[in-house]
Amino acid sequence: MSGGLVSRRHHPIRGLIEFAFLCIIIRMTVRVAVAGASGYAGGELLRLLLAHPEIEIGALSAGGSAGTPLGRHQPHLTPLADRILVDTTAETLAGHDVVFLALPHGHSAALADQLDDQTVVIDCGADFRLADSDDWQRWYGSEHAGQWPYGLPELPGFREALLGARRIAVPGCFPTTTLLAAIPAFAAGVVQPELVVVGVTGTSGAGRALKPHLIASEVLGSASAYGVGGVHRHTPELTANLSRSAGTPVRVSFTPVLAPMSRGILATCSAPIVGELDTAAAREIYERAYRDEPFVQLLPEGSWPTTAATVGSNSAQLQVTVDPDAGRLVIVAALDNLTKGTAGGAVQSMNLALGLPETTGLSTVGVAP
Amino acid sequence: MSGGLVSRRHHPIRGLIEFAFLCIIIRMTVRVAVAGASGYAGGELLRLLLAHPEIEIGALSAGGSAGTPLGRHQPHLTPLADRILVDTTAETLAGHDVVFLALPHGHSAALADQLDDQTVVIDCGADFRLADSDDWQRWYGSEHAGQWPYGLPELPGFREALLGARRIAVPGCFPTTTLLAAIPAFAAGVVQPELVVVGVTGTSGAGRALKPHLIASEVLGSASAYGVGGVHRHTPELTANLSRSAGTPVRVSFTPVLAPMSRGILATCSAPIVGELDTAAAREIYERAYRDEPFVQLLPEGSWPTTAATVGSNSAQLQVTVDPDAGRLVIVAALDNLTKGTAGGAVQSMNLALGLPETTGLSTVGVAP
Amino acid sequence: MSGGLVSRRHHPIRGLIEFAFLCIIIRMTVRVAVAGASGYAGGELLRLLLAHPEIEIGALSAGGSAGTPLGRHQPHLTPLADRILVDTTAETLAGHDVVFLALPHGHSAALADQLDDQTVVIDCGADFRLADSDDWQRWYGSEHAGQWPYGLPELPGFREALLGARRIAVPGCFPTTTLLAAIPAFAAGVVQPELVVVGVTGTSGAGRALKPHLIASEVLGSASAYGVGGVHRHTPELTANLSRSAGTPVRVSFTPVLAPMSRGILATCSAPIVGELDTAAAREIYERAYRDEPFVQLLPEGSWPTTAATVGSNSAQLQVTVDPDAGRLVIVAALDNLTKGTAGGAVQSMNLALGLPETTGLSTVGVAP
Amino acid sequence: MSGGLVSRRHHPIRGLIEFAFLCIIIRMTVRVAVAGASGYAGGELLRLLLAHPEIEIGALSAGGSAGTPLGRHQPHLTPLADRILVDTTAETLAGHDVVFLALPHGHSAALADQLDDQTVVIDCGADFRLADSDDWQRWYGSEHAGQWPYGLPELPGFREALLGARRIAVPGCFPTTTLLAAIPAFAAGVVQPELVVVGVTGTSGAGRALKPHLIASEVLGSASAYGVGGVHRHTPELTANLSRSAGTPVRVSFTPVLAPMSRGILATCSAPIVGELDTAAAREIYERAYRDEPFVQLLPEGSWPTTAATVGSNSAQLQVTVDPDAGRLVIVAALDNLTKGTAGGAVQSMNLALGLPETTGLSTVGVAP
Repeated sequence: MSGGLVSRRHHPIRGLIEFAFLCIIIRMTVRVAVAGASGYAGGELLRLLLAHPEIEIGALSAGGSAGTPLGRHQPHLTPLADRILVDTTAETLAGHDVVFLALPHGHSAALADQLDDQTVVIDCGADFRLADSDDWQRWYGSEHAGQWPYGLPELPGFREALLGARRIAVPGCFPTTTLLAAIPAFAAGVVQPELVVVGVTGTSGAGRALKPHLIASEVLGSASAYGVGGVHRHTPELTANLSRSAGTPVRVSFTPVLAPMSRGILATCSAPIVGELDTAAAREIYERAYRDEPFVQLLPEGSWPTTAATVGSNSAQLQVTVDPDAGRLVIVAALDNLTKGTAGGAVQSMNLALGLPETTGLSTVGVAP
Repeated sequence: MSGGLVSRRHHPIRGLIEFAFLCIIIRMTVRVAVAGASGYAGGELLRLLLAHPEIEIGALSAGGSAGTPLGRHQPHLTPLADRILVDTTAETLAGHDVVFLALPHGHSAALADQLDDQTVVIDCGADFRLADSDDWQRWYGSEHAGQWPYGLPELPGFREALLGARRIAVPGCFPTTTLLAAIPAFAAGVVQPELVVVGVTGTSGAGRALKPHLIASEVLGSASAYGVGGVHRHTPELTANLSRSAGTPVRVSFTPVLAPMSRGILATCSAPIVGELDTAAAREIYERAYRDEPFVQLLPEGSWPTTAATVGSNSAQLQVTVDPDAGRLVIVAALDNLTKGTAGGAVQSMNLALGLPETTGLSTVGVAP
Repeated sequence: MSGGLVSRRHHPIRGLIEFAFLCIIIRMTVRVAVAGASGYAGGELLRLLLAHPEIEIGALSAGGSAGTPLGRHQPHLTPLADRILVDTTAETLAGHDVVFLALPHGHSAALADQLDDQTVVIDCGADFRLADSDDWQRWYGSEHAGQWPYGLPELPGFREALLGARRIAVPGCFPTTTLLAAIPAFAAGVVQPELVVVGVTGTSGAGRALKPHLIASEVLGSASAYGVGGVHRHTPELTANLSRSAGTPVRVSFTPVLAPMSRGILATCSAPIVGELDTAAAREIYERAYRDEPFVQLLPEGSWPTTAATVGSNSAQLQVTVDPDAGRLVIVAALDNLTKGTAGGAVQSMNLALGLPETTGLSTVGVAP
Repeated sequence: MSGGLVSRRHHPIRGLIEFAFLCIIIRMTVRVAVAGASGYAGGELLRLLLAHPEIEIGALSAGGSAGTPLGRHQPHLTPLADRILVDTTAETLAGHDVVFLALPHGHSAALADQLDDQTVVIDCGADFRLADSDDWQRWYGSEHAGQWPYGLPELPGFREALLGARRIAVPGCFPTTTLLAAIPAFAAGVVQPELVVVGVTGTSGAGRALKPHLIASEVLGSASAYGVGGVHRHTPELTANLSRSAGTPVRVSFTPVLAPMSRGILATCSAPIVGELDTAAAREIYERAYRDEPFVQLLPEGSWPTTAATVGSNSAQLQVTVDPDAGRLVIVAALDNLTKGTAGGAVQSMNLALGLPETTGLSTVGVAP
C-alpha cells in the first residue's frame, strides 16, 4: 500500500473500498509503525500485529531506549527481538500506512500534525479523546488539541465514524470497560443519570514508569485505591460519553483500585433503576445491545466475569443484575486493559479504518488459567 | 480463673471488676479454647492468643482433622505444632474461661447452648449477628438462634454492651470494614440513606474450603465479582446496623470482588451528600469519631489506605473525600479480614468482656511489605 | 479427512505424504477430539486448536462434567462456550482424525486400545512415556502399557519418529524444560553425568484437582518445595532421556518448587564441567543445537529467561553460563508448562504426525507483561 | 543507659553483665537509632523494635527522605507515623545505646568509625561480612573495611562472639538461609565439599530501589533467574563460611530466582553424600544441630517448608532427605528474608550483645495464610 493511492484523497469511503479491494486482489500488506514500542501498550500492539495477516511491521520507535534492540525491552516478542528501536520523529514514522502512537499524554498532537493526512494515525494516549476544550484544560492543564473519532465501535453510532477514518483516538482502558458496561442501560433510559464505578485494575495500566507505589513489593499482597474522589483523568471521558448517550448530564463517581495482577480490569458499575426494571428486562437490553458484537459477551445467567478469562483477548465479558433491595442495576465488566482496553481496541479500529473485516487478527479467546 | 467465681453471677460489671482485679493481683491467666482450630479464623485466633500476655491456650478442637497435630494444618504456629486437635464438643470445650467458636455458619448455636453461662463464648460465625428473625430466615433459611452483643466496639454504643459480656457475636469481615467506613457519616446525617460498597477481598475470607473457584490457578492474575446484586450474606448485617445508626432505613448495594491476595479487604464506599458537605467537614466528622479509637486510623490527607499496611494488625485505615462533581462522599477503608475483620476483633471483644485493657495482645503494626 | 484413506494403512510415510497433499489440494480439515476438555491441559489444547488453520474441533469429552457446557469450565474459550461435554468413551472419540487425551495418569492405555490404528492419538498423560517396564512399575505401580514416540522433536533423533506417527506420548512439563536445557551439554559430553535441577513451577501444572495445598490462600505469597529427594514422577523420564543422550547413566537430582503464579516453569540446571569448558564454548554448543529450532531461543548474552516472556507461547527460552569457581555449567530454561510444556508440544507433534508445517497454529510470541 | 557506664570499657563481658543487671533492676530501656528507616530493612527493624519490651526508639534517619514523616514511607508502622526522619549522620545517630545501619553497601564503614566504641553498631549491609580483603576487593571493588562478628548465632561458635559485642555484621539473607541449611551436613563431614543452591526469593530482598525488572508488572506471574553463574555478591559469604565449617574449601554453585511474592526465601540445597548416609542419619545430624535453637525448626518427616509459614517471624524451617538415586543430600530451608534473614537476625544479635535473653521481642509464629 505504501506509495499512496491518489483516489483515496477525495472521498474516504470510496478510497476505503478501493483500498480493501486492492488488498484482496494483489495481497498488498499494510505497513505499520509503532511509536512507543518499548512500553506496554506498544508491546501489546506489536504482539497483536504479529498475528495480523495483513500487516507488515515497519519502524519501531522509542524515547530513551532508541538505539537498543527491542528484545531487551520486550523479550516476549521473539520474532522482533533483533529490531533496533529508532527515535520517535515524524521522519522515522513517515512512509507507513498506519502509525500507532503509544506515547505519554501530551506527545501525540505535535507529532500527528506532521504526519501525512492519508496516514491512519491511531493515538493510544489521551490527547484527542475529549470534545470539550474546557474539560481538557481542567484535567490536563495544556491546550486542547482537538477531538478524533473515538475507537470504541460498540458504542451506538461510533462504528460509522471509524470507517475510513484517518485519525482515531483510542479510549482509556477504564472508559472502555465502563462504557461497554453502562451505555446500554443509560441509552435505554432505565437508570437514573448517576453512575458509581469501582474499577479494579492490574498494574500494567500504569505503564512502565518507575514509581514507588508500583514496585512489586508494594503491590504484591495488597489492594489500594488511588485517584479517589473524581480526580482520575479518565473521569471526563466517562462523563462526556455517558451524558451523550443518556441525553442528559450523568454524574459519575469513579474509583480505581489497584490489585496485585498485571493485566485486567474488573469494573463494578451501578445506578439507581427507574421504574420497575428487573433482571430479565435488564438482560434483554444488554442482549439486544451486544447480540451482534463480536467482542462483547453477555455471560449466561449465573456466571460472572473474571479478568482471567479475557487475558490477551479482545473480549469484554459482562453480566447484569437488578438488586431490588438497593434499587440499583449492577453491571460487572471484565476485559484485558492492554488488549481490548488499549491495543486490541486500536487494532479493531484500524481494521475499520482500512476497510478490513473488523475482527481480523483479533481473538476472543483468553489465555487462562 | 477456672473454678468459677460465685459473685460474678448476679451483676456482670461487679463480677468483671472483681475478675480483672483478681487477675492483676494473683496473675491468674485466662484459659481459652478454640473450636475450629484447623481453619483460617482459628489459626489467626491462635496466632494472636500466643502473643497475648494473659492467656493460656487450652483445648484446640476441629471437625475432620481431630486426632491430628495442629502443626499439620497450621505450620506457622510453631509453639503449638505438637498439640493434638480434639473433637468439637461441649465436653472438650468445657472448663475454659473463654471459648472461641470459629465454625461454619449454623454450628454455633447448639454448641453455645451447652456451655456454661459464665463462660465467655465468642462466635466468629454468623449465627448471632442478626436481630431480626425474618432477616435470618431469609438469608440463612434456618431458625433464628437469637442475637448477641456485636463485637465492633467502635460503633457508637456498642463498646458498653461488650463490657463483661458472656456471649459475643463477631461481625463479618465485610461489615466490620464497611461499618467502620460508613457509620460516622450516616450517624452525622451528612449523607442520604443509600450506600454503594465494593469490597475487594483476599481469598482467606472464604476459609479453607476446597471450592473450584478458589484454587490458586483460578485466582492468580484474576479479579472477579461474586455474590453480586445484594445476595451476599453480609448484606443484612450491613443494612441493619447502618439503618440503626442513621435512624432511617438505609439501602445498601454491596458487591464483593475477589482479588489475588490472601489477606485484606479494601472497601470503597460512597453515598450522596446532603447539603454542602466538603472534604474538610467530612474529615472533621471522621476525626471526631475515631480520635480516641486505638484501632482506627484516619490517614493524613493525600494518603490512601492499602491493605498491605494492615496485614496481621488489628488496625483499620480510612480516608475520606467529597467528590463535588458526583455529589458523593467517598470513604475507603482497609483492614486485614482475618485480624481486625475476624480474630483480632474477637480478641478485642474478649478483652472488653474480661475487663482487660482493650488493646492487650493486639498490635496496630502491620507486616509490610 | 474423516472417512478413512485406505492407502495410508500400509506405509505411514507414504500415507502421510498423500494426506498432506490431499489437505492442500482439497482443503480438507482435520477433525480433532479432546478428551479431558474441562481440565487445564484440555483447555489449553482447545485454545491452540481454535487458532490452528487446519483444524475442525469435534467431540469434547469429560468425566464428571459431561453434560454441561464447556463455557462453565473454560470461560476463556468464548467460541466454544455452548459446546456440551460428552462422556469420555471410545465411541464419543471415534470418527476423528486426531484424538488428544488429557486425562489423569493411567486412563489413556485402555482408551487408546479401542481407537482406530489410523487415528492420531496424542496422550498428554504419562502412560506411554517410559520405555522401561520396571521404571513404570516402580513409579506408577501399575502394569506398563508400552512406549510411544516422545513428543519432543527438538531432541536429537526424535523429530523423525514423530513424522507420520499415529501414537505420540507428550513429555511431562518438567522433562520438556529440563531436557531442552540439558541435552545439548550431555550430548556434547562437556559435563559429567550428574545433573541438579530445581524447577520452579506455577500451579496450573497440578491441574484442577481440589487439593488443600493448592488453594489460593496457601499459594499466594509463598514458595514451597514438594516431591523432594527424587520422588517426583517426572524423574524417570529425565533420567532415561538424559542417559540415552549422554551414552552413559546420568544421575539426576530433581526438586520441584511451587511458586505463586499460574503458568510457567523456570528450571535451573547445573552439572560439573569436564575439562576447560567456558561460557563461550558452552554458548556455541547451544547455538548449534538450537539454531534451526523454531521454538527454542538461546537468549543474547546477559539476558536471562523469565517465564512471563513465554506465557501462552510455544517458546522455550534458554541461557547458559559456566561458573568457573563452582566448576559447573548452569543452564536456565523458561517455558509455559501448559503450552510448550503440554498442549503446545502436543500440537507441534500433531503437525509432524500429519505432515503439516511444524509451526502451524503455534506462536513464539508470549503474552507479557 | 545513655550517658555511658565507665566500667564497661575494659572488659566486655563484665560490662555486659553489669548492664543486663542494671536493666533489670532499674528497668533502664535501651535507646536505639535506625539509619535507613525509610527502606524495607529499616522498616522491618522498626516493626520488631516496636514489639521489643526493652527498647526505646530514638533517631530515625534517612537519605533523600529526611525531613518527611515516617508514615509516608512506612504506613504500616502506625505508632511512628508522625516521626520525622533526620539525616543520616554521626551526629544524629550519637547518644544511642544501639545503632542499626540499614544502608546501601559501602555506606556503613565511614559512619561506624565515627560512632562511640561502646555503642552497639549492627550493620545490615555487607561492609563487614567478609574476612578476606581480596574477596572484598573482587566482589565489591572498594577497600576492605574489616570484619565484624557475624550475626548468625546458630552457626557453631558464632554465638559466643556476639555476647557483649559492640560491632556486628548481619549476614545476607541468602547466606542466612543457606548456611542454616547446609552447615550441619558440612560440619559433620557427611557430604562432599560442593554445594548447589537455588534460592527462590521474594522481591523485598532487593529493597526499594526503582529498577525496571522489579516493577510489579514484570514480577507478577513470572519467575526469573538473575546473578547466575556465581556472580551474586552473597557467594563469597557462603563459600567462606561453608569452607570454614567443612575444614576444606567448598565449591558453591548459587543461583537466585525471583518469584512473585514480597517476602520469603526458599533455598533448595544439595550436595553429594559421602559413604552410606541415609535420611534417618541425616535427620539425626540436623536434630542434634538445632535441638536447642529457638529459631530453627526441623519439620516432622513428610512436611516440607513453605515461606508462608515463616512470614514476619524469626523462624527458619528445614527439612532434609537423602536421594539415593542421585546420591545427594537435599536440604530445603524457608525463612522470611526481612525477618530472620535481616532485621530479626539483627535484633537477635542485639539481644546477645546486650545480654538480654536471645529471643526477647522475637516471635516464632508466622503470619499465615
